[in-house]
Amino acid sequence: MGNLERIIKEIKPLDTMAMSVARQRQSMLTKPLGSLGRLEELSIQIAGIKRDPIPEIKHKAVVVMAADHGVVEEGVSLYPQEVTRQMVINFLKGGAAINVLAAHVGARVVVVDMGVKGGFPPLPGLVCKMIDFGTKNMARQPAMSRSQAIDSIEAGIQTVEAEIGKGLDIIATGDMGIGNTTASSAIFAAMSGKPVKKVTGRGTGIGDKQFAHKVQVIERALKVNRPDSKDPIDVLAKVGGFEIGGLAGVILASAAYRIPVIIDGFISSVAAVIATALSPGVKDYIIASHLSAEAGHSLVLDFLGLKPLLNLNMRLGEGTGAVLGLFLAEAATRILRQMATFAQAGVSEARPLFPED
Amino acid sequence: MGNLERIIKEIKPLDTMAMSVARQRQSMLTKPLGSLGRLEELSIQIAGIKRDPIPEIKHKAVVVMAADHGVVEEGVSLYPQEVTRQMVINFLKGGAAINVLAAHVGARVVVVDMGVKGGFPPLPGLVCKMIDFGTKNMARQPAMSRSQAIDSIEAGIQTVEAEIGKGLDIIATGDMGIGNTTASSAIFAAMSGKPVKKVTGRGTGIGDKQFAHKVQVIERALKVNRPDSKDPIDVLAKVGGFEIGGLAGVILASAAYRIPVIIDGFISSVAAVIATALSPGVKDYIIASHLSAEAGHSLVLDFLGLKPLLNLNMRLGEGTGAVLGLFLAEAATRILRQMATFAQAGVSEARPLFPED
Repeated sequence: MGNLERIIKEIKPLDTMAMSVARQRQSMLTKPLGSLGRLEELSIQIAGIKRDPIPEIKHKAVVVMAADHGVVEEGVSLYPQEVTRQMVINFLKGGAAINVLAAHVGARVVVVDMGVKGGFPPLPGLVCKMIDFGTKNMARQPAMSRSQAIDSIEAGIQTVEAEIGKGLDIIATGDMGIGNTTASSAIFAAMSGKPVKKVTGRGTGIGDKQFAHKVQVIERALKVNRPDSKDPIDVLAKVGGFEIGGLAGVILASAAYRIPVIIDGFISSVAAVIATALSPGVKDYIIASHLSAEAGHSLVLDFLGLKPLLNLNMRLGEGTGAVLGLFLAEAATRILRQMATFAQAGVSEARPLFPED
Repeated sequence: MGNLERIIKEIKPLDTMAMSVARQRQSMLTKPLGSLGRLEELSIQIAGIKRDPIPEIKHKAVVVMAADHGVVEEGVSLYPQEVTRQMVINFLKGGAAINVLAAHVGARVVVVDMGVKGGFPPLPGLVCKMIDFGTKNMARQPAMSRSQAIDSIEAGIQTVEAEIGKGLDIIATGDMGIGNTTASSAIFAAMSGKPVKKVTGRGTGIGDKQFAHKVQVIERALKVNRPDSKDPIDVLAKVGGFEIGGLAGVILASAAYRIPVIIDGFISSVAAVIATALSPGVKDYIIASHLSAEAGHSLVLDFLGLKPLLNLNMRLGEGTGAVLGLFLAEAATRILRQMATFAQAGVSEARPLFPED
């Protein structure tokens, strides 16, 4: 567990000095104090993350991790398993939603094969961190071994470390994996103790009958595997997925390297549950981008104590919500960095009618 | 009323054919149907506005209208009146929040003097549509004459017409005017019949005593002037502001020229109340960007029947929320235009486990 242990040890608290200077600067900019609401808060958080009172965001990336899920053979998804592979190719060709939205915000898309069924030949732009050709069917046996779970987290750490060399000021997380809402619901039910039915959603859009079936499959997976809620690695191994472990590693490494990490929807947030269970201090480095339409996501965010920036009824994954959140985080830092102060602009400050008010 | 009447006559319903083609295209793109939520809805609305099933947004502008308010002498604001003028200079120099955020989304900032106290010499980048050096004190007399109210709306129309020549695919609205939440609350109370206290907020951040005083001033203005809720021009004249009339004109002209118009917070939304009262069809052309922290804004949006895209606890005005909404509107059109279809990408479509589900 060397690499993972090392990263966890490197996670330190936010820099309160940088935050305090940033907060003071916000009060000097030409606007009523607090009038930019969550953008002001975000800028202060990012100052604390980056240990820089006036942080700058130039290099942006969304890490999209893809893997397959053995549990798909139980009939939990609306789409056939081959869609995971097809969508990876779509990411590489630039035709998916995340490509369009990442380009819109100026972020590069890092596509990672964490374990897609059948594997890929070497492809330009595809980062190979394949743990296995998809997980096992968790309704019958553990999804992966304990060492594979650790490998998947470490693959996420390695991915971030490789990207840092290319310039990396902020990270967004994304996922692709037919069946991965099933694994995510199972993880969150195990970690939180909440009933499966409450933390399970329609995924890509299944109907009532298939939903009832999905809930039963998850309940069976938990019964068969008995994951230990005190041991996030055990939960990840028994009912998780390679891309979920990988994203937990991305989140942990972001915190260790003091890079703000914008999490996407349900799957990314469940990865954050694993990451924060391994190291609670990680939470301060996470920015929740949006509230997904996937049932259960708001429970995950409550569990994490995070408040989403957006609520646009989205439920696509891939990092599509995360890059929109990344845009807001960058906006926040630009406000802090680029606005004129009252003194610079020669603008008068507040004069309350009732000074004691 | 020639120009205004002409514009109102030019406002037509959305193009349902373009919307239907856009809706069909959304169902063919490589994502589960509906999984991009409000972005999908936005793209269809914009297709209908632009009469183009695959609309493109290239030229973006935020129109920031500034004016002064005679009612400020009653002590309704936390900031002195000179701040309106100082902030106009700040806009022209690029140091305000709207400059930073507009640059972030690639929109040009159009700064319009609708009637700032004392006026300006000719300044590069300042559009002069000055109606008068600020309104009169509405707590004692009508804020402006009926013909000034019409002139202010027509100035907004002219502003849009001048910008169209420079290329204009989408418009965001913004305001600057110390005292203009007071005028806006008065307008909305008059138009909606709601109690002043319910539709009045803290503006730039006044305390409890000054808030109680602000409510009394607005109540007095309504009592003194008795605006006719059936006549939006009368309401604008008696308790309005030049920049609010100007923004109503911007909104009307946007609809007439089939340009999506993203409204900002409380002041812009009250301008939209005037515009939709003059021509109800305008509503379909409006996109509500954010829910402001200004008390009463949610009531205005409910009155308009609009649902905001963002809720970031912002209350700055200037168009700061509107340009963030503009970014989302552009994201929506990019999704519709640039994503690959299932057929293009060779991605398999849905196969429900229970076809009748």
